[in-house]
Amino acid sequence: MKAVAQAHTNIALIKYWGKRDEALFLPMNSSLSITLDRFYTTTGVQFCKDLSKDIFMLNGELVNEQELAKMTRFLDIIRNYAGVQEHAIINSTNKVPTAAGFASSASGYAAVAAASTKALGLELGGKELSMLARRGSGSATRSIFGGYVEWQKGEREDGSDSYAKQILGEKEWGLTILSVLLESKCKKVSSREGMKRTVETSPFYSGWLDTVEHDIYSAKEAIRNHDFDQLGKVSEANALKMHATMLGATPPFTYWQSGTLAVMERIQELREEGISAYFTIDAGPNVKVLCMPNDEERVRAALLHMSEVEDIYSCHPGPGITYLPESTMRMDIGY
Amino acid sequence: MKAVAQAHTNIALIKYWGKRDEALFLPMNSSLSITLDRFYTTTGVQFCKDLSKDIFMLNGELVNEQELAKMTRFLDIIRNYAGVQEHAIINSTNKVPTAAGFASSASGYAAVAAASTKALGLELGGKELSMLARRGSGSATRSIFGGYVEWQKGEREDGSDSYAKQILGEKEWGLTILSVLLESKCKKVSSREGMKRTVETSPFYSGWLDTVEHDIYSAKEAIRNHDFDQLGKVSEANALKMHATMLGATPPFTYWQSGTLAVMERIQELREEGISAYFTIDAGPNVKVLCMPNDEERVRAALLHMSEVEDIYSCHPGPGITYLPESTMRMDIGY
Repeated sequence: MKAVAQAHTNIALIKYWGKRDEALFLPMNSSLSITLDRFYTTTGVQFCKDLSKDIFMLNGELVNEQELAKMTRFLDIIRNYAGVQEHAIINSTNKVPTAAGFASSASGYAAVAAASTKALGLELGGKELSMLARRGSGSATRSIFGGYVEWQKGEREDGSDSYAKQILGEKEWGLTILSVLLESKCKKVSSREGMKRTVETSPFYSGWLDTVEHDIYSAKEAIRNHDFDQLGKVSEANALKMHATMLGATPPFTYWQSGTLAVMERIQELREEGISAYFTIDAGPNVKVLCMPNDEERVRAALLHMSEVEDIYSCHPGPGITYLPESTMRMDIGY
Repeated sequence: MKAVAQAHTNIALIKYWGKRDEALFLPMNSSLSITLDRFYTTTGVQFCKDLSKDIFMLNGELVNEQELAKMTRFLDIIRNYAGVQEHAIINSTNKVPTAAGFASSASGYAAVAAASTKALGLELGGKELSMLARRGSGSATRSIFGGYVEWQKGEREDGSDSYAKQILGEKEWGLTILSVLLESKCKKVSSREGMKRTVETSPFYSGWLDTVEHDIYSAKEAIRNHDFDQLGKVSEANALKMHATMLGATPPFTYWQSGTLAVMERIQELREEGISAYFTIDAGPNVKVLCMPNDEERVRAALLHMSEVEDIYSCHPGPGITYLPESTMRMDIGY
């Protein structure tokens, strides 16, 4: 009734933007990501007969009521799947600094899906685990696998064909992903709200859907051929399209700040200087830069020179779900 | 055979973005602008039997071959219209500093259309003059009229229903338009090329066309009711949509620079502080800000504080075509 799992966060190159089912986290379009070595969540789950409710410790502290309710809602899906009723103690350590510009929900829900199903004695394959993780957070669907991963949107209403698949293993093609941190300002529109508003009001959303499946195709082809420029170009163009859809929403919004544009301009300049580097941007102001490992130091140095840049984290393709010995995490919290 | 005319530049609130006929300068969508008091072109035209080619003086100097060829191409349309063959001396003074972020083609072609037809003894109404000016530059169509102006896109292939109309005179509603200059960097994609690439490749262009006629309707309603917030909102949203279409083009492009975003953010902050101010952006990095005359000094002061801002020009609704006495401009250039 006890297990520990580790999951890594991921960066989408072809973006997940828009839900077709809010409750089941079913996406309007397929997406494609790289699982990252540097940022991860380690989570132990223990189901106990004596508990009257779930207990959720995050980085050594009990979470607030709202966070607990989200976790219980997710564990209810797992419990329902497994046919059990016991509550659980969840002890989670999050090595995804919020300041790094990555959401921790991808690695967080992937890890708890893996640990809780293992604790309940279920032997799930990647496909089933991916579908379960999806019920916690869309991007968690992809964090089940390492390396280069596609989340196929699926067509069915019950979501039974909406799950991720590995395209290429994490050791098969080395890329560098630099996460470029800007001075942090508060994010005004959550990605959940941003997606919803875009789907419901932007005249550009249909244009996004019309082209994203072709972007997926092109990115997969580039990954299979190890064609860095093709992958960089389609990733950058796809991110720009995602952000364009928001500018057409009612009311319009953008996650870009002046520093975001400054980094985008610098990357374009670097390309003019002959360095293959491309950017992608998620639902926030920070920029992630793709380059080949050989160019990493030059790109990093160029960006660190900029007054707008606070810090840079270097990442590479990382592994999918890993199970750790139960002893890895001290589950006894004095209950 | 001699006349002098003055035309003012204009700022589009609902943008002209995309041609349906490249040769006739026929637009894909209607647009709406304010003619501005501050920036104008004064042009004298004299047709002479003895000339073997046109002579074009701009700000006291002969223009280069390329500029001359463009002017001759435009005068050929006028000559054809009037049934004459004489070449002309064109003496033009341009009070539209390129650095101010306004194209001089709007006021330039409007003034030469007015002066040359008057010199040839044609008594044209605003509609005919507007259609002629259009053949030189799309935005010149609107500079024939003062105040608040709509360019109706028209449907006909020959362009005979594609011309501008005044919505409200320049003295009927006072607004302030602040032209905010940023550090100048070179514009990489001309607006002509930008439009073309967007129409041909952006998956968002149909979404632009689907909504722009409604924006025109809303802006006209706001102008007739003197409803500043309605006009500001629809203008800002329309500009964002125009710029969004470019992000989807192949290859993608943007006219925004980091300073552009910084000014956009500052305007949004001013609104949160209770000042009604809205931005619009043309095919370049500079930002134009709309506000009520009462707020002009506060908005100007806030923007001048920004390190990215080089200068601010204050404009108000200005007049349409004005004819000046022939003596205004010394036409004898020693030929």
